[in-house]
Amino acid sequence: MEDVLDDLIEWLRIASISALPEHAPDVRRAAEFTAKLFSQAGLENVALIEGEGHPLVVADWLHAPGKPTLLCYGHYDVQPAEPLELWRTPPFEPTKLGDNLYARGAADDKGLAIILIKAAERFLRAGKPLPVNLRFLFEGEEESGGDHVAAYLKANPQALSCDAALICDTEMFAPELPTICTGLRGIVYAELKVRTGAVDLHSGVYGGAVPNAIEAAARIVAKLKHNDGGIAIPGFYDDVLAPAPEELRSWAALPFDDEAFRRDEARVEALTGEPGYSVVQRSWSRPALEIHGIRGGFTAEGAKTVIPCQALVKISCRLAAGQDPARAARLLAEAIDAATPAGAVASLHVLHTAKASIVDPRSPFIREAAVAMSEVFGGQTVFTRSGGSIPIVGLFADLLGVPSVLTGFGLPDDNLHAPNEKVYLPNVYRGIEAIMRYWTRLGLRQSEGM
Amino acid sequence: MEDVLDDLIEWLRIASISALPEHAPDVRRAAEFTAKLFSQAGLENVALIEGEGHPLVVADWLHAPGKPTLLCYGHYDVQPAEPLELWRTPPFEPTKLGDNLYARGAADDKGLAIILIKAAERFLRAGKPLPVNLRFLFEGEEESGGDHVAAYLKANPQALSCDAALICDTEMFAPELPTICTGLRGIVYAELKVRTGAVDLHSGVYGGAVPNAIEAAARIVAKLKHNDGGIAIPGFYDDVLAPAPEELRSWAALPFDDEAFRRDEARVEALTGEPGYSVVQRSWSRPALEIHGIRGGFTAEGAKTVIPCQALVKISCRLAAGQDPARAARLLAEAIDAATPAGAVASLHVLHTAKASIVDPRSPFIREAAVAMSEVFGGQTVFTRSGGSIPIVGLFADLLGVPSVLTGFGLPDDNLHAPNEKVYLPNVYRGIEAIMRYWTRLGLRQSEGM
Repeated sequence: MEDVLDDLIEWLRIASISALPEHAPDVRRAAEFTAKLFSQAGLENVALIEGEGHPLVVADWLHAPGKPTLLCYGHYDVQPAEPLELWRTPPFEPTKLGDNLYARGAADDKGLAIILIKAAERFLRAGKPLPVNLRFLFEGEEESGGDHVAAYLKANPQALSCDAALICDTEMFAPELPTICTGLRGIVYAELKVRTGAVDLHSGVYGGAVPNAIEAAARIVAKLKHNDGGIAIPGFYDDVLAPAPEELRSWAALPFDDEAFRRDEARVEALTGEPGYSVVQRSWSRPALEIHGIRGGFTAEGAKTVIPCQALVKISCRLAAGQDPARAARLLAEAIDAATPAGAVASLHVLHTAKASIVDPRSPFIREAAVAMSEVFGGQTVFTRSGGSIPIVGLFADLLGVPSVLTGFGLPDDNLHAPNEKVYLPNVYRGIEAIMRYWTRLGLRQSEGM
Repeated sequence: MEDVLDDLIEWLRIASISALPEHAPDVRRAAEFTAKLFSQAGLENVALIEGEGHPLVVADWLHAPGKPTLLCYGHYDVQPAEPLELWRTPPFEPTKLGDNLYARGAADDKGLAIILIKAAERFLRAGKPLPVNLRFLFEGEEESGGDHVAAYLKANPQALSCDAALICDTEMFAPELPTICTGLRGIVYAELKVRTGAVDLHSGVYGGAVPNAIEAAARIVAKLKHNDGGIAIPGFYDDVLAPAPEELRSWAALPFDDEAFRRDEARVEALTGEPGYSVVQRSWSRPALEIHGIRGGFTAEGAKTVIPCQALVKISCRLAAGQDPARAARLLAEAIDAATPAGAVASLHVLHTAKASIVDPRSPFIREAAVAMSEVFGGQTVFTRSGGSIPIVGLFADLLGVPSVLTGFGLPDDNLHAPNEKVYLPNVYRGIEAIMRYWTRLGLRQSEGM
């Protein structure tokens, strides 16, 4: 596995921070290095796709007629490394300490994405054909919210036609617990503006006789959820789909301790949420309504007796599978209208929406991956979901019409987006083995009917 | 009346902005000019009292044994003049346009405070004794919240012993409507901190399973008042005193149009507040609970999916006559405790409190002033209150044990604290005449038994 480590270290040396314009030359070098890794693996039609922002790097190997085609996705860009003073080793001088390799991008995503490249290389460099057809699509704007990959997918869906996408950018639920993520929540993110008058007023003169925009905003917010944590928007839960029985069984068996989670991970005063559901269900398969920010009036040091005439609230609804974002946004707007007290005018502006993405764990693409991962890592592969969104998964679903297989080879303590990011190298090597087995198992099937 | 205008113009030329350290020499010049006005009026024992901050200027005339003693209060400092570009005439070049004199401080307070000085001068320069005993106390930190006057009052109450205070720093309810303000509301101003955990969390990962500090703050705020506008704190209204019948009659007769007030003055969407009370009662004689500011989480442009672990709320209760500030603060804290949802910790920090100040309109100090003002201005003198606080009135009540007579000679459109501040000169001249008549009427009484 020395070639894996050497190539990974070389890739990680490149500070491909896509959010910082001064690192644009590094991002390009990382794209070129990605292309080199593709070529070296024996992949064909390696190319940099130029466009707005940083290049895409593509390649393919399509010599398994009748067999399934997988779209292998990864990203070669990384997060900024700040705060630098908290790193124990320099972020762009990859450092191996025991079984871990420390560097910015070690787990997100170079150290996991290389698994897909090296799995292909293992077949092709040994002179063996790949058991399935592969397309590779790596982007350089995942960490900076760039539009290049979306624009390319929209313009060239046929160039990426496939049966499923395969993404190594998620983590195991716990060490040694092979994990596949089968669902992501959707979102409606909106900004609420509440206005009660033309100007701020003096509370000495007007207090008690005029509306108060912050009070109005607070009344609206308080009415959107029940005291017990459930969402109080009429009809909001109507279309929520229950998880598959396999998933519920898998979740119930996960090593999860509510009190340890509260105290050590979330570090909150108490766990709250929709009654009748476990913590895991609340954050993976149930919708959630959260207030992200609020602003109004005077909040500096000291006392100012202003009656504010406007307030701003940032609010989102995480959506469960089955919920239509447009309908959820409409129900939210209607509930806000109904909750707006006399003397206040509320306006809701939706900033963005995304549908939840779920993959049926009974799909052969998931089942075969689960078996392959169990064989390599030992123990039953568990199914998890994520309460957040991974935009590319929604794009693959919407534009290519394919499910995404999210294999978790990272670990919960990999410090993504934080100082001292690392990857656990044995998982990289076992990941390569698992992906090879996965492709071999899929290659026993025909694409038809999958 | 030329001496009045000349002296006022000279006083107003001094930019005695107490809040700006670079104007400290101007503030001192204004103090010295105040002392000159006192001496020129024939007052005795004129002195600058030095201490922390800007000097006090005192004087007296105490040669009416057995007659009432009045403490004449005013301030010689002014607000900053910014924004300068909105002034039509330079703020420190007093400009007479028609019957109005424009300058910073024209109405607040030099142009009204000079009434007291010139009324005394009219008696003494004519060689006539004053009908009452007078003490003068002018300060230079009213606009900047300085502590000098309070410290001096606390240390030297006997030096200011009197039967009542007389203050020319308020306005008529409407032009040509002689007005006495007989009450000020008190206040409890506090800061509420709400905490739900140790760090902000990602709503994708935790949304729906952990408490949200902004939601908790909103729930607390929403529970402090009823939907109909009444304060929902148990026992809060218990000690509120009803206004005197004279006041209620006077208020009901005031020229006040709800819709014009809403549209043209308050400029709000609707008038709200405690059911069963008029707008005037709500803002003058009933307590009010207002939220002045709220802050939490992410409120910049765009979308960030944070679950905030803390929120800050600025909140005050305006207190009616009869309410004890300490009890009001305790009831507020208890109501917040009761309203705090599971998973949140709320802490209330009281920043300052003040008791309401009311004067009985049947007091001879008020009655004689009302008659004198009616004689000069024509029409019945009306009794108003202010929904705000004037701290010096509370100090006079607490430290000297005397009521304050607040005679309104300003006009509602005098632009206090705003560009183009002005004073209506005929009111200054009529004010001098009214104060002279007031003192003459009081001089017919003995101090004993008032």
